[in-house]
Amino acid sequence: MNYRMIINTIGRVLAVETVLLLLPFVTAILYQDSSVSAFLITILITAVASIGALLVKVRNRVIYAKEGFTIVAFAWILVSIFGAIPFYISGAIPSFIDSLFETISGFTTTGASILTEIETLPKGILFWRSFTHWIGGMGVLVFVMAIVPLAGDRSIHVMRAEVPGPTMEKLVPRIKGTAKLLYSIYILLTVVEVIFLVAGKMPVFDSLVHAFGTAGTGGFSIMNASIAAYGSPYLEYVIAIFMMLFGVNFTIFFLLLAREFKLVIKNEELFWYLSIILIATLAITFSIMPQYGGFGEAFRLSFFQVSSIITTTGYATADYCQWPMVTQMILLLLMIVGACAGSTGGGMKVSRLIILLKKVRRDIHKLIHPRMVGAIKMDGKTLQQETVDNVSLYFISYMLLLFVLSLIVSLDGFDFTTTFSSVVACMGNIGPGLGMVGPSGNFSGFSNLSKLTLSLAMLFGRLEIFPLLLAMSPSLYRKK
Amino acid sequence: MNYRMIINTIGRVLAVETVLLLLPFVTAILYQDSSVSAFLITILITAVASIGALLVKVRNRVIYAKEGFTIVAFAWILVSIFGAIPFYISGAIPSFIDSLFETISGFTTTGASILTEIETLPKGILFWRSFTHWIGGMGVLVFVMAIVPLAGDRSIHVMRAEVPGPTMEKLVPRIKGTAKLLYSIYILLTVVEVIFLVAGKMPVFDSLVHAFGTAGTGGFSIMNASIAAYGSPYLEYVIAIFMMLFGVNFTIFFLLLAREFKLVIKNEELFWYLSIILIATLAITFSIMPQYGGFGEAFRLSFFQVSSIITTTGYATADYCQWPMVTQMILLLLMIVGACAGSTGGGMKVSRLIILLKKVRRDIHKLIHPRMVGAIKMDGKTLQQETVDNVSLYFISYMLLLFVLSLIVSLDGFDFTTTFSSVVACMGNIGPGLGMVGPSGNFSGFSNLSKLTLSLAMLFGRLEIFPLLLAMSPSLYRKK
Repeated sequence: MNYRMIINTIGRVLAVETVLLLLPFVTAILYQDSSVSAFLITILITAVASIGALLVKVRNRVIYAKEGFTIVAFAWILVSIFGAIPFYISGAIPSFIDSLFETISGFTTTGASILTEIETLPKGILFWRSFTHWIGGMGVLVFVMAIVPLAGDRSIHVMRAEVPGPTMEKLVPRIKGTAKLLYSIYILLTVVEVIFLVAGKMPVFDSLVHAFGTAGTGGFSIMNASIAAYGSPYLEYVIAIFMMLFGVNFTIFFLLLAREFKLVIKNEELFWYLSIILIATLAITFSIMPQYGGFGEAFRLSFFQVSSIITTTGYATADYCQWPMVTQMILLLLMIVGACAGSTGGGMKVSRLIILLKKVRRDIHKLIHPRMVGAIKMDGKTLQQETVDNVSLYFISYMLLLFVLSLIVSLDGFDFTTTFSSVVACMGNIGPGLGMVGPSGNFSGFSNLSKLTLSLAMLFGRLEIFPLLLAMSPSLYRKK
Repeated sequence: MNYRMIINTIGRVLAVETVLLLLPFVTAILYQDSSVSAFLITILITAVASIGALLVKVRNRVIYAKEGFTIVAFAWILVSIFGAIPFYISGAIPSFIDSLFETISGFTTTGASILTEIETLPKGILFWRSFTHWIGGMGVLVFVMAIVPLAGDRSIHVMRAEVPGPTMEKLVPRIKGTAKLLYSIYILLTVVEVIFLVAGKMPVFDSLVHAFGTAGTGGFSIMNASIAAYGSPYLEYVIAIFMMLFGVNFTIFFLLLAREFKLVIKNEELFWYLSIILIATLAITFSIMPQYGGFGEAFRLSFFQVSSIITTTGYATADYCQWPMVTQMILLLLMIVGACAGSTGGGMKVSRLIILLKKVRRDIHKLIHPRMVGAIKMDGKTLQQETVDNVSLYFISYMLLLFVLSLIVSLDGFDFTTTFSSVVACMGNIGPGLGMVGPSGNFSGFSNLSKLTLSLAMLFGRLEIFPLLLAMSPSLYRKK
C-alpha cells in the first residue's frame, strides 16, 4: 500500500476544500452574519491539515486499485469532517454528530437534513450547506471519470459498469481533457439554471443555492417548505426540468455538443430513463388528480416529484406522504432505481437495472435452452460477462446492505416505513423517504447510532459500495 | 413440448388428490358436519378431471427441463383450484377467489388466511385446510428430490443449488428409494409430534391438524389465537422444537440414521441455521423482557416466534407487532432468509444466504487481487461456478419480484408496512407479516387483485421462482 501517495493526494483534496471554503466565508462577510469567524477558523484548520499532508513526500507515484479505493473513501470522509466544523462552531448545529450527518448528506448530494428550522440560519452557513452539494456533484464526476480509471486490472470494470454506453474516454482521449469538459458542462448548466430562476423572480441568493442543490442532485433548500415556498409553477417547472437534466449521463451532453445525435438516440439508458419518468409521472398524476384541482396541477406536482426522486435530488413541492400508497411505492422504487450512470445522481442507476433485467431474462431462458449463447447487448454492443457479473454483485451488495443497515436503524424503535425508507433514501442519496422522514419531516429524531449508520449508508451509496467496503476491510492494510 | 406427458402426469397428481380428499370426507362424516356433500361433490369433480387427463395417451415418456417445470407449475395451480372447491361449495368461504387464496396458501405451506373466524367452521373443512399443508410439505419434498432430477442438463443445477451438501441421491442411488425414505422420515416425525401433543393434553383432532401445520411448515391453526389459545408452555415448546426440526434439511435426518455424525457436524447450513435461531432468540428475548414476567417467559415466546418464522411456519403465541421495532425487523429478515434447503420450509434458504455472502466476500476481494482464484467452498467442497451464479440469479429474481409485487399490492392503499410485509410473508411462505397482516390480523381486507397477486407470490416462493416464470413465458410454448 502506497500510504505516502494516499496521504499526499488527500492533502491536495483538502487544499481544494480550503480554497472552496473561501466562498461561504466571503458570503458571510457580505451578509455580515454571525458565521464569519466559524469559517475563518475552519479555513485555518483545514489549511494546516492540508499542508501537513502535503509535506509527506511521495517516493512512488504509482497507484493501484486499492490505493484508488482508499483515497476515494478517505477523501470523502475527511472532507466531510472538516466541512462539518463551520456548522458546529457557529452554533448552527449544536451537536457534532449532527453537523457531520448534515455535511456528509451535503457532500454525498443526499440532502437528508437534521435541521428543523432552516430559514433563520446565517446566510454563510446556508451557502456552505448548499455548496457542499455542488462540490459533491463535481466530486462524483471526478470520481467516475478521473479517479476510477486510475484503478488497474479488473477493478476498472466495476466502475465501468456504470458507463456502458460510449465512454467519454474514447472520445476525449486524455483524462484531464475529459474532466475539464465535464466541469465545463456542469458549470454551464448551473449558470443557465440560475439565469432561468432569477428570470422567474427568485432572489439571486436563493437561485444560486437552489441551482447548487439541483446540479449536485442534492436537495438541501433554504426554505422549510422546500421549493413549495415560492408558490411559482414556473420555478417548479424550471427546477423539475433541470433536475431531470442533471440526472442524465454527462456523456450525452458531450455527444450533443459533438453533434453525434445518432448515438444519443441509440442510447438505451437515456430511453429508459425518460420512459420511466414519463410513465411514473402519468401514473402518479392520475392517482393524485382527485386531491388537486385537475390534471394541470396534478401533472406539475407529479412531474416535479418524479424528477426530484429519480434523480435522487429530493426537493419537494408537495408532501407525497399524503398521496395514495401506490404513488409512495412508485417513488420508493424510483429511489432504488436512481438516475443515469455518469450523472451526479445516486441510486442503483438505470443502466444497472437494464443490465440486470436483461441478465435475468437471459439466464432464465438458459435454463430451458442450456446451449444458448445469449450475449447481453447494450446500445447495440455486446457486454463483457465481467460487466454483467459486476452489476449483479452490485445489486446483491446493495440489497444486503439495505437490510443490514435497516436492522441497526430499527433499534431506534420507529415504525417500519420510517426505518426502511430512511435507509433507502440515504443509500440512494435522495434525502427524504417515507413516514417520519418524508418531505415534511426530517432526520433529527434519530439516535446518534442511527445518524452514523445513515451517514455510512450515504457514503456507501455515493462511493458505489466497493471502495468503502474495501477501505473498511482489514486485509487491505495487511503487508504482503 | 411433450404436452401429452404433461397432461397425463397432472392427471396422476389429481388422482392422488382425489384419494387424499377421502380423508376430510371421512372426517366430515365422523363429525356429522355440514361439509359432507361438499367433499363428495369435489371428489367426483376431481376424479372426473383426473380420469379425463389420464385418458390422454402418452407416446413418448421422455421429459426435459421445460416439461418438468411446466408440470410442477400447473400441478400446483390445478391441485389448488380443485382443492378450493370444498371451501366454496360448503359455504365456509363465500368467495371463490378467497377459497383459492386459502387453498394456495395451504398447499404452498404458507398459512396466510383470509378467515376472520376459524373456530366455528365444520371439522371436515378444518381438517382439509390443515391437511393441505401436510400434502404441500410432502409435495415440496417430491419436488426437490424426485421431480427436479428429471430435468436434464444445466437446469438441474438450479435446483441442486438448494442441496449443496451431501445429497441423498449419492447415498440412496435410486430416486424412488430417496422419495420413500423422505416420506418415511416425514410421516414418522409427524406421528411423533402428534404423540407429544396428545401427551400434553391437546385434543387428538387438534394435535393432528397442528402437527400437519408444523410438518408442512404451514401455520394454519384451528384456533383464532393460534397456539396461544392452549395456554400451555409445554405444548409451545413441543411445537417450537418440531417446527425447528421440520426446517432442517431432510438429508441430515438420513445422515443421522446412517450414523454419519461427522457429516452432520461438518454441515455448514445446519450450523448457521441453528446459530441464527440461537442469536435471534436471545436478541429478541432481551428486547422483550421488560414487557413480560422475566427471562423464562420472554425466552419461550421469543424461541417460539423465531422458530415459527425462520422455518416459515407462522404459528403464533404472541402478537409480535406489539414488540419493539428491532424484533419485528429481525423477524422480517428471518422471513426472507427462511429455513434450510431440502426441508419443507420456504424463504430464500440458509444455504443460499451462505453462498451469497461467500460470493460477495470473494468478489470484493477479487477487485484488489484480480488474479486470485477464490473458489467458494461449502462443507469443505468447492462449489461449481454455475451453482454460485444460480444462487445470485435466484436472489436477484427474488428481490425484483418482491418489489414488483409490492407495487401491485400497494394499489389497495394500505400502509407500507402491511403492503411490503404481506408480499415478503407470502413469497417466503410464512403467513403472517407485519402491520395489518400481523399475527392478530389476516388477509381478508385485500382486494381480489391483491389476493391473486399474493397467491402468485406464494407460488413463486414455493416453486423457487423459475418453474413458474418459465411456465408464464410464451416462448416456452412456441414450436421450434
